[in-house]
Amino acid sequence: MTWVDPLDRGRFPADEWALLEVSGPDSPARENHAQTLFNVANGYLGIRPGSGLTFINGFHETYRIRHAENAYALARVGQVMVPVPDGTCFEVTVAGVPLRDCELVSRTRRLDFRDGELIQDEVWRLPDGLEIQIRQTWLACLSRPGLAVTTLQVDAGGAPVEIAGPLRVGFAPAESPEAGDPRQAELPIDGGLELIDDAGPLAAYRCRNSRLAVVVGRRDTATAARLTRYLSYATTPFGPDGVADGLAVTLDEDLAGLKAECARTLAAAPDLAGLRAEQRAWLAAFWERGDVRVELDSPSKQLAIQQAIRFELFQLAQATAAPGEQGIPAKGLSGSGYSGHYFWDEELFILPFLTYSDPGRARQVLRFRHRMLGAAKRRAAELELAGALYPWRTINGEEASAYFPAGTAQYHISADVAYAVQQYVNATGDRGFLADGGAEILAETARMWADLGFWGDDGSFHIHGVTGPDEYSALVDDNYYTNAMARHNLRSAISAWQALGDAGELQEWRRIADAMHLGFDERRGVHPQDAQFLHREPWPAQEQRRPLLLHYHPLVIYRHQVVKQADVVLALHLLSHEFTAAEKRADFAYYDPLTTGDSTLSAATQAIIAAEVGAAELAERYFEQALFVDLADLHHNTADGVHLASAGGVWLALVAGFAGMRDSDGEIRFDPHLPPGWKSLMFSLTVGGEPTQYVFT
Amino acid sequence: MTWVDPLDRGRFPADEWALLEVSGPDSPARENHAQTLFNVANGYLGIRPGSGLTFINGFHETYRIRHAENAYALARVGQVMVPVPDGTCFEVTVAGVPLRDCELVSRTRRLDFRDGELIQDEVWRLPDGLEIQIRQTWLACLSRPGLAVTTLQVDAGGAPVEIAGPLRVGFAPAESPEAGDPRQAELPIDGGLELIDDAGPLAAYRCRNSRLAVVVGRRDTATAARLTRYLSYATTPFGPDGVADGLAVTLDEDLAGLKAECARTLAAAPDLAGLRAEQRAWLAAFWERGDVRVELDSPSKQLAIQQAIRFELFQLAQATAAPGEQGIPAKGLSGSGYSGHYFWDEELFILPFLTYSDPGRARQVLRFRHRMLGAAKRRAAELELAGALYPWRTINGEEASAYFPAGTAQYHISADVAYAVQQYVNATGDRGFLADGGAEILAETARMWADLGFWGDDGSFHIHGVTGPDEYSALVDDNYYTNAMARHNLRSAISAWQALGDAGELQEWRRIADAMHLGFDERRGVHPQDAQFLHREPWPAQEQRRPLLLHYHPLVIYRHQVVKQADVVLALHLLSHEFTAAEKRADFAYYDPLTTGDSTLSAATQAIIAAEVGAAELAERYFEQALFVDLADLHHNTADGVHLASAGGVWLALVAGFAGMRDSDGEIRFDPHLPPGWKSLMFSLTVGGEPTQYVFT
Repeated sequence: MTWVDPLDRGRFPADEWALLEVSGPDSPARENHAQTLFNVANGYLGIRPGSGLTFINGFHETYRIRHAENAYALARVGQVMVPVPDGTCFEVTVAGVPLRDCELVSRTRRLDFRDGELIQDEVWRLPDGLEIQIRQTWLACLSRPGLAVTTLQVDAGGAPVEIAGPLRVGFAPAESPEAGDPRQAELPIDGGLELIDDAGPLAAYRCRNSRLAVVVGRRDTATAARLTRYLSYATTPFGPDGVADGLAVTLDEDLAGLKAECARTLAAAPDLAGLRAEQRAWLAAFWERGDVRVELDSPSKQLAIQQAIRFELFQLAQATAAPGEQGIPAKGLSGSGYSGHYFWDEELFILPFLTYSDPGRARQVLRFRHRMLGAAKRRAAELELAGALYPWRTINGEEASAYFPAGTAQYHISADVAYAVQQYVNATGDRGFLADGGAEILAETARMWADLGFWGDDGSFHIHGVTGPDEYSALVDDNYYTNAMARHNLRSAISAWQALGDAGELQEWRRIADAMHLGFDERRGVHPQDAQFLHREPWPAQEQRRPLLLHYHPLVIYRHQVVKQADVVLALHLLSHEFTAAEKRADFAYYDPLTTGDSTLSAATQAIIAAEVGAAELAERYFEQALFVDLADLHHNTADGVHLASAGGVWLALVAGFAGMRDSDGEIRFDPHLPPGWKSLMFSLTVGGEPTQYVFT
Repeated sequence: MTWVDPLDRGRFPADEWALLEVSGPDSPARENHAQTLFNVANGYLGIRPGSGLTFINGFHETYRIRHAENAYALARVGQVMVPVPDGTCFEVTVAGVPLRDCELVSRTRRLDFRDGELIQDEVWRLPDGLEIQIRQTWLACLSRPGLAVTTLQVDAGGAPVEIAGPLRVGFAPAESPEAGDPRQAELPIDGGLELIDDAGPLAAYRCRNSRLAVVVGRRDTATAARLTRYLSYATTPFGPDGVADGLAVTLDEDLAGLKAECARTLAAAPDLAGLRAEQRAWLAAFWERGDVRVELDSPSKQLAIQQAIRFELFQLAQATAAPGEQGIPAKGLSGSGYSGHYFWDEELFILPFLTYSDPGRARQVLRFRHRMLGAAKRRAAELELAGALYPWRTINGEEASAYFPAGTAQYHISADVAYAVQQYVNATGDRGFLADGGAEILAETARMWADLGFWGDDGSFHIHGVTGPDEYSALVDDNYYTNAMARHNLRSAISAWQALGDAGELQEWRRIADAMHLGFDERRGVHPQDAQFLHREPWPAQEQRRPLLLHYHPLVIYRHQVVKQADVVLALHLLSHEFTAAEKRADFAYYDPLTTGDSTLSAATQAIIAAEVGAAELAERYFEQALFVDLADLHHNTADGVHLASAGGVWLALVAGFAGMRDSDGEIRFDPHLPPGWKSLMFSLTVGGEPTQYVFT
């Protein structure tokens, strides 16, 4: 089968260490796609170059969720990451003519994965025919969270040039958080930023509802036609532990502190050459730990694949670089999709990369989950449950999912968090983390499972009325993935509390774990996704509109045997040691044809299991679906931001798929299955504190 | 067991032909309750005396339903019955003092079920100690839909009296249709009535969104301290056939027509004595056909029960009197609860009374359902279904349920409509109605079922992903009630189309009906409510907050074996001949203890089956729960309007419960089970066009 490069190489020339784009005047859609691809971010702040949109991780507005029909304990507080004032858009005037009245002739962008700086060159034609050249650069300092630098250079052949660079507040409240695609963020009409004060180089803003404040500092140095701007940001330390709640009282001190922090960041910044050197050093260390290198028979395919892998890893770096206890939004800081919320993407798709390449960062993300435990316990109580129930989607720790059948009903998120805790402890040997919150997460989530489920007449422990990872089924009984992950959660808690726990409680967890209902359909020889699934009607073959969620009423989707994303198949990966090879083959053979892959979380998992069961070509096809999802805009919504879980999934597909790494029993093992035409695969894993390089051929 | 009268007879003196209330100054809650009880209505218009709220059946505003999280084909057009301008509230000034500055000393109301006129006497005390007497009467003409009359007489002992009576527009848009109790109507913020013109005695208003217009006519005749006001209303003929859609164009002619109609209604009205005579004549005929008389051992209990029965029957009369093809709102025209929507209440709880006492009216209601068929076919297509799917709740024919798991998912409404068609045809012998729309309803709904379900591996026909009558389970498989009613629907369609239908389609319907999956649990010896129900966890005994829907998250409710309202037990009644006596006993014994009765539709059905299985005392207890639901405000929300389905249920509990009438096989049979202490039960049924009197002792 001939390989077809998914990218238009006229527009995106291949380069194994950079993303390049060569274009003329673009359509808005292409430009929105490019703004995502070329985002520059450092885990704390992210800029979509040219859009006027800068985001800060966790900086959010709140609003009351209005339910068209209310019910008890539905999620009440909507949260949405709102853009902070952007200082990277300039208004250029040449010979008295504003640039917006000129014609864009060409534009090239280059984002080097080792430099971590975006360079954009444009040629504009004035009404009188004069062509001018403009270069702008953007750098989000990977080792200085609050700092970004942009430069602008205009070559107008001696014509007079004026440059203005006001702050832009990109917040545009939408009429309602409803229209169209539920995956897009929309902003509440009654919220947003308001300017508090604008004193010289420091401007302070505050969200009307959440009361979170942001201070923006600017320092410009300019010569005739060249401007260098340092931008610094400081935001109210918010958090699931409720720090922001006290804000109304302490607002003045808060602001003074943020201003001082902002000024310090500017004052401490070295010159541009120094910042560039820091950036390169940070990335050199990142690639040393995290690079994945491939060799293929085909040089052109190798170049395309290698570039795309590095692009994806670079996105992971940009979304997670900043130190500190914070979450990782589903789109990183590259766009407003999914409202900047934290989902299970964080624990199951992004954290494995950090756990095995930068475990200190993984620990901080898990610490952030621990800070959410109070909110998760309150949420459990609202649902009449003991222990803690993590919200399906959140920024501030409160459940923000407005549609509970595919939100709160995904109880499995609590087991996913527990899984990540256990995986981190296994990989690092950092048992100190258990005392530092990890064991508490394991116990509180275990308590939730023990209370949620019940003992059936058959003597087994059942968990009913849940939604599994596959959102094309809802409110089902004994979802296999959920039950199996809950059992893993209980066993992790038992192991962590062995010495210190209450003996009666440990005994109860053990009884439940041992009796957890995990179905097996003898006739079909597969694990049923849930108690109902195998009895449903097959999806009508002629109904091909994709994704289903944008073309069919949920009632139509729910009653059919159709899968949005890996569900049982995800269990085959995460709980690998609980299945025989034959079971994996049978389950994959059954579920793979039913899986639409309408979620971008699906392809990587399908790739991993396809590789394991020997479906090598299929594995590679799924891998490429994950690898090019953003570069080739395969789901037509990269404009909303990078699919960061898919980026983590690319790493997983390489490491767990092609190299066949498994760690679900606490040991690292490999069972490599390189795709046809792949000569070698190289990466490092940090286990027990030490990086080790692996090469598979 | 001593009988305890549920009513405070100090406040509500007993009278077998009237509702009386004696009170002093009331709390607002008691007053709101009383305004519902003393509503005067004629099926077209309804007045809540003293509240400034007048409603017209089907007169509604529309608004866009905003879903907190959107999905494909969710209901889009919200509909809400909005009050029309009310002309029955007067501003009285005595000796220069407005009445609102005086003290209410006492108030008595009397609504005679044979007169159909409400009389209210009040005593007010002026600041100077003078006591004045005010009598107001209200009469909604049962034989003249657009006409109401109110009189006001002030006896101020010779002090000068001024009376003003402006129209009041009671529309108060709510901030959102969300807060609190989902059963209450809230009005959209962006809609409402606007005055178009106010020329002398005729004033015209229009709803901003729905474009429906209402013209109000007034004619006052006054003497010194007595005013008689005739009010006439005319509204845009709206309807599910889309008449209202053309309004924007034809508004001027439309208005002219409404004004002329309004003027004609006023001009044609006889004097008050004449109207009162008409009213009494109408009611005499009503009671002749529809009265139910009881004799009990205990005279005081007999009086209380007889009064309450007549109150309930009188509410049915008031909600259904007007001729013409229209629906019956869940609260009649007595309040704004459930937004004035039509539900299955209409077909299964209210229509049986009409079918067996005033079949011409039943026919018109079913004709109205037929006019909704176009919208129901469009809705089916939106859900990828052939045929017609009736909306769960609607005024204009479009689905208005904003929460699909307990709305659109209740597919059974289509079978309920078909059941009512079949019941009407059986009872009346009016096969002409089949040609006049009835057969088309049967065929289109049968087509929907054939497409919704599928053939399982077991050779049976299954219907998955539905919600049955019990809203405390959602999105279940093979709900017994739904499958059994769908089979009845298919068989009714086969019977109607025997001669004319497509042979292939009839054959398919027959195969499906014969293979319909109707479960039976051998171990428990009961019919499972659905495929999952019997496997769910029992409801925790300590969780006693009621109604569950206001105290527990839906996820908590859905995963337990707990029932909001009769589900399997309703099938035992409606499809009586499909069950053995032993099955009925077993099913009732199983489900009755699980049934919270949080829906007022439940008690009557439980009463019917309790009577049949010989649980006589329980049957009477359920009967009284239905009988006094509004008089004693047992569900604490009669302020929102009369529970009209419960009123129909009272009639059913008497006729189908205590007299044991069954007609589900097309024949009328009786199997009387009078409660202990009941000496006789008398009523008439109109079957085959002729009324017959029945007496059970």
